[in-house]
Amino acid sequence: MAILLAAPDRNISKLSRRVQVLAPELDVRTYPDSGDLSEIVFAVLWKHPPGLLASLSGLKAVTSLGAGVEHLLADPDLPAGLPVGRLVGPRLAADMAAYLIAQVLWHWKGLNRFSELQRQRQWEPYSPHSLPTIGLLGTGQLGRAAARAFQALDLPVAGWSRSGTGPDSVAMHSGPDGLVELAEQSDYLICLLPLTERTRGILNADLFRTMKPEAVLINVGRGEHLIESDLIPALNAGRPALAILDVFQTEPLPADHPFWKHPKIRITPHCSAITRTDEAAELIIKSYRRVLAGGDPPGKVTRKLGY
Amino acid sequence: MAILLAAPDRNISKLSRRVQVLAPELDVRTYPDSGDLSEIVFAVLWKHPPGLLASLSGLKAVTSLGAGVEHLLADPDLPAGLPVGRLVGPRLAADMAAYLIAQVLWHWKGLNRFSELQRQRQWEPYSPHSLPTIGLLGTGQLGRAAARAFQALDLPVAGWSRSGTGPDSVAMHSGPDGLVELAEQSDYLICLLPLTERTRGILNADLFRTMKPEAVLINVGRGEHLIESDLIPALNAGRPALAILDVFQTEPLPADHPFWKHPKIRITPHCSAITRTDEAAELIIKSYRRVLAGGDPPGKVTRKLGY
Repeated sequence: MAILLAAPDRNISKLSRRVQVLAPELDVRTYPDSGDLSEIVFAVLWKHPPGLLASLSGLKAVTSLGAGVEHLLADPDLPAGLPVGRLVGPRLAADMAAYLIAQVLWHWKGLNRFSELQRQRQWEPYSPHSLPTIGLLGTGQLGRAAARAFQALDLPVAGWSRSGTGPDSVAMHSGPDGLVELAEQSDYLICLLPLTERTRGILNADLFRTMKPEAVLINVGRGEHLIESDLIPALNAGRPALAILDVFQTEPLPADHPFWKHPKIRITPHCSAITRTDEAAELIIKSYRRVLAGGDPPGKVTRKLGY
Repeated sequence: MAILLAAPDRNISKLSRRVQVLAPELDVRTYPDSGDLSEIVFAVLWKHPPGLLASLSGLKAVTSLGAGVEHLLADPDLPAGLPVGRLVGPRLAADMAAYLIAQVLWHWKGLNRFSELQRQRQWEPYSPHSLPTIGLLGTGQLGRAAARAFQALDLPVAGWSRSGTGPDSVAMHSGPDGLVELAEQSDYLICLLPLTERTRGILNADLFRTMKPEAVLINVGRGEHLIESDLIPALNAGRPALAILDVFQTEPLPADHPFWKHPKIRITPHCSAITRTDEAAELIIKSYRRVLAGGDPPGKVTRKLGY
């Protein structure tokens, strides 16, 4: 019985060692040093190579090394009925909330202006009059942590999810009409959704037209949530006023992509929240032990819903 | 019986109208249109003119139009035993917390670098490894709101106050040794203290020498908390690494002041949290009614302690 970690586009040797240090009794293997594949009962995968899943005949469960599972669900070799989990711990959710709070408050409090004013030795106090409404697309584990952080500052938070369920303190919306209601009232519209067939392209020209002229769009979900070709015309037309993007359809964002030089787009290179080695190692061990005991991995997704 | 609002260096006509709209039955006067001064039983003051207090013979209480009361306590005409209140509502505290969260998280998450990287079309993800310890000098109403906001992001918060009392969730320190303990462990050392004879000059060369080399100093208390001539040598010597200052001994900061052009100083022009008209009007009415009923104004300070 062994666990396999496979994330070919990342260096996970530190993570692998950390799992081994925390649980020396486990047989932990790191792709491509996978050993006898029939011994693998649990795999933690991130953009794993095609065909790998088909070769793991003893697999009891699989977990994504991150918040998203679309790379797993899209694999035609994923056995029907195999439990699929994901690694989202409280620290990842807090790191994401910290990114969102920093972006929103820096913009809301107008702090950018002060570096230029300092250069000019100008004393021009600024403080925003009204309170911004934070609109959260997605109120799962990440959305709830973000809601908590914004509410600790007494800022109004509204949310949208497929089912319309969310924290009690958040004014929830659902469905196509609810999406428009949320967009109409949000000063900061934040996409934290899982990528599914229903949410792909949800950030599009139709939605942008319903936004407030001064509103800011923030995408920390997936690049595929955004119809990229709709964004620049929308920004040029004035809604949204600004887009803060951490994720893109092609990453790294190609050097000739028009987003780089648009004055109303702020780019961060997919680092709003990065899985921390310590938390990931603990979650992997916890997941593996639960699978060995015959249970489902934590964060088990509903495959029909895609998250 | 009348209430007097006096804040010669601010335009408070909107505030005065707001009080009148919310409580039309009150006789509200705005300096210098003060009418018969013997009718004034409650005064809300901010940097009021010298001699004004001596002329208010019927005064039952006075309240600062803001969080600080040092301008009131320094007035030799302040009658002994007259209750002194201050206007700090939850919105002011939340606005201050928002400023601090924005400054700390923007710096911690390294978000400044991405505008330059975007200009260069460089894709260089960055995410901080360790969690910063937030050190709060002052754990009164403002400090508690800030602590709550940082803790909503699961960041460790430590505090220092005269008495050592603070929120249960905050590791508290007190006294001179406690001050050093706090400075030694803080990645962000934030001054939210009231200005008293004990706290004047508390941010000085001796304290800076105990800070971590990478630590950031943030002063949102009063300019007089900082020995200004100690700061530049300390920054040049490497502790703290950066100072974010919202308050200064002379405001506006004079054009020839060396802080303006120091590369390790970030200046905001005393606008971290500005009293909002709506909240101030409600607090003024509440304070006045309590004074009329024979009680103390909310936020009553202990004059011997200075806050």
